[in-house]
Amino acid sequence: MTTRYADRMEGVKPSAIRQLLQYGADPNIISFGGGYPDASLFPASELQAIFTELLSGPGELSLQYTHSTGMPKLREQIAARMAADGVTTEQDNVLILQGSQQGLDLAARLLINPGDLVATEAPTFLGALIAFNPCQPEYLAIPMDEDGMMTEVLEQQLQAGRRIKLLYTVPDFHNPTGITLSLARRRHLIRLANQYDFIILEDSPYREVRYQGEKVATLKSMDSEGRVIYFGSFSKILAPGLRLGWSVASSEITEKLGLLKLAADTQCSTLNMAAVSLYLERHDLDAHIQVIKARYLAKKETMMSVLKSEFPADIRYTNPHGGLFTWLEFPESFDSEKFMLEYAVPQARVAWVPGATFFPTQQRKNFARFSYSTHSEEKTLQGMSALARLLKKHL
Amino acid sequence: MTTRYADRMEGVKPSAIRQLLQYGADPNIISFGGGYPDASLFPASELQAIFTELLSGPGELSLQYTHSTGMPKLREQIAARMAADGVTTEQDNVLILQGSQQGLDLAARLLINPGDLVATEAPTFLGALIAFNPCQPEYLAIPMDEDGMMTEVLEQQLQAGRRIKLLYTVPDFHNPTGITLSLARRRHLIRLANQYDFIILEDSPYREVRYQGEKVATLKSMDSEGRVIYFGSFSKILAPGLRLGWSVASSEITEKLGLLKLAADTQCSTLNMAAVSLYLERHDLDAHIQVIKARYLAKKETMMSVLKSEFPADIRYTNPHGGLFTWLEFPESFDSEKFMLEYAVPQARVAWVPGATFFPTQQRKNFARFSYSTHSEEKTLQGMSALARLLKKHL
Repeated sequence: MTTRYADRMEGVKPSAIRQLLQYGADPNIISFGGGYPDASLFPASELQAIFTELLSGPGELSLQYTHSTGMPKLREQIAARMAADGVTTEQDNVLILQGSQQGLDLAARLLINPGDLVATEAPTFLGALIAFNPCQPEYLAIPMDEDGMMTEVLEQQLQAGRRIKLLYTVPDFHNPTGITLSLARRRHLIRLANQYDFIILEDSPYREVRYQGEKVATLKSMDSEGRVIYFGSFSKILAPGLRLGWSVASSEITEKLGLLKLAADTQCSTLNMAAVSLYLERHDLDAHIQVIKARYLAKKETMMSVLKSEFPADIRYTNPHGGLFTWLEFPESFDSEKFMLEYAVPQARVAWVPGATFFPTQQRKNFARFSYSTHSEEKTLQGMSALARLLKKHL
Repeated sequence: MTTRYADRMEGVKPSAIRQLLQYGADPNIISFGGGYPDASLFPASELQAIFTELLSGPGELSLQYTHSTGMPKLREQIAARMAADGVTTEQDNVLILQGSQQGLDLAARLLINPGDLVATEAPTFLGALIAFNPCQPEYLAIPMDEDGMMTEVLEQQLQAGRRIKLLYTVPDFHNPTGITLSLARRRHLIRLANQYDFIILEDSPYREVRYQGEKVATLKSMDSEGRVIYFGSFSKILAPGLRLGWSVASSEITEKLGLLKLAADTQCSTLNMAAVSLYLERHDLDAHIQVIKARYLAKKETMMSVLKSEFPADIRYTNPHGGLFTWLEFPESFDSEKFMLEYAVPQARVAWVPGATFFPTQQRKNFARFSYSTHSEEKTLQGMSALARLLKKHL
């Protein structure tokens, strides 16, 4: 038989990088491709005590169904954390999600009709593109510089009559580039959203993992018209395997996202929500985040040291103040995927994510995303040095 | 500001029963409304030992990201359980889902274009309607009798030229009626699907909770053309708070559902998947299900005893051989929601789910869904007897 799929499936294709990501599972290859947090930082023993306690009773409160919008106590705790970060909000404006990825999927369904224009940074988070694609948007790719999305380019496009329905941004330690959107650009973006009537999805899973510099106010904190939907995540500050993230939005939008959440999967895991809530009650998450930051800073510095001292000078790279990634720019004619497959994997046993796939419209081949979070400093030095030697031979 | 939502949101409304379900949280009211499993049956102590063990290591295998399609070992274990139930399948045909509810959402997105015709039983599972509605289908409501969906009525509609894209059925202990689709009707349904080229969603979360009678072969086991997508769930046989279900489908469909799953929420909880996998390895789930069955049979008999001996004779009800629900039919002129709000809640302190909301097209008011799983036998007797007295006064 030939199945007649819905039209939206035309935008749902296996990712070009899926095959490349297999290198992450090969112990003979040092892959800087995956965006995995360092598993040694997960607070496993604290969580062990919490799960043990939660399951010592009859399970009515940990194994049964609960509210589709999320456990009320956890929503309240998240609202308090958001308030401490400058976003005044109520429990009712917080929705618990199956990771912030689910927020991107639900927000796309909330807002995007086929053909609607969605603005994103170029490059942008691949997970956002795959969440948006089934809703069949068109993309408006806004270039970036060292201050993030070039909002003046966005403004030119808007002035020229292009009407966007929503704008997606990763303002803090952007995936894949590691760049942070400047305060001035954030203010400009909010002004543009108010003037040209669009919604902003502020996706900030790395925000709390800032190990250098001062934090920049969230877009949500500048949002006076209910135009910003903020997405946060416990994946990088606790553990991704729990699959818990959240949204903060206006009451009206939260209500509608909640209806979509109920339809999508009823609710998140009761047990995992109860566990994170108890963790926040019993432990100092901010102190734990300090430990994470120190580790990632050391790991970043290790990668930076090789990039600075051993890589050919015509390869540019970002030096992020947080998050997991640096973004390499090779000379214009360099094809980073081709080089990886033909030389780096077979000769240096090193892999990464070629940059082309992160561009929503015109793909550019001379970029690469390197994650410094996964490996030990020793392995990072080993892999990056081997790659530096190989690049010097070829560039 | 006025948010410009996507057109699909016109079908996304708060459920009419949401307000009614609040009675479930009121300790002064005996609500037979919720479809909750009996929490005292959750294997909390076995799960406690398992979670404690899983979190005793560094968390690499329980708290990190894993495959978006699900933990391979768990997929294999589910494939083996499906094989024992007559469905020959491979690990690669099994996809782990955030409850079977997620399967309904993903399958709708896979298949339904706006305006496509979706056939369902009338009445049908409300969760399916809310999952399908954002894809904007039209519904073809097929009536039921004591053998389930009247497939001869479906055939007449097909012969008359109505073309359906997919058919949704809960063949075992149907929600809300508790009725099981007969073997002859199942065979007929498969013939019709092959002849008229449609996909069947076989949603069977209650299948393993059969406490009377012989099991009837799944539609999936009769599917020679890859037309059936089967959905199973651990919610009724282990615990719903873990949020784990699965699909079994052709390789092509599983591949595409997997892409939608990745886009929707990356993956299910690594920890919960690891826990259920270890439970299946260490414990005899079928022995546990025997305990569940014995309890639910006793609970059902309690409710049946009051329905039989104390309720007015012109109220009909189903006597299910499994699952959680019985379906009451009142005289044609009786409005079950009105009676509940005006009399049953204030005078007998009893609530249920009025039947109208379960009908995809023409809503009928003289029905009600009663769940016998939640309360103790004592409370069930108390609530049902109070209701019987009230009904006798009014009918």
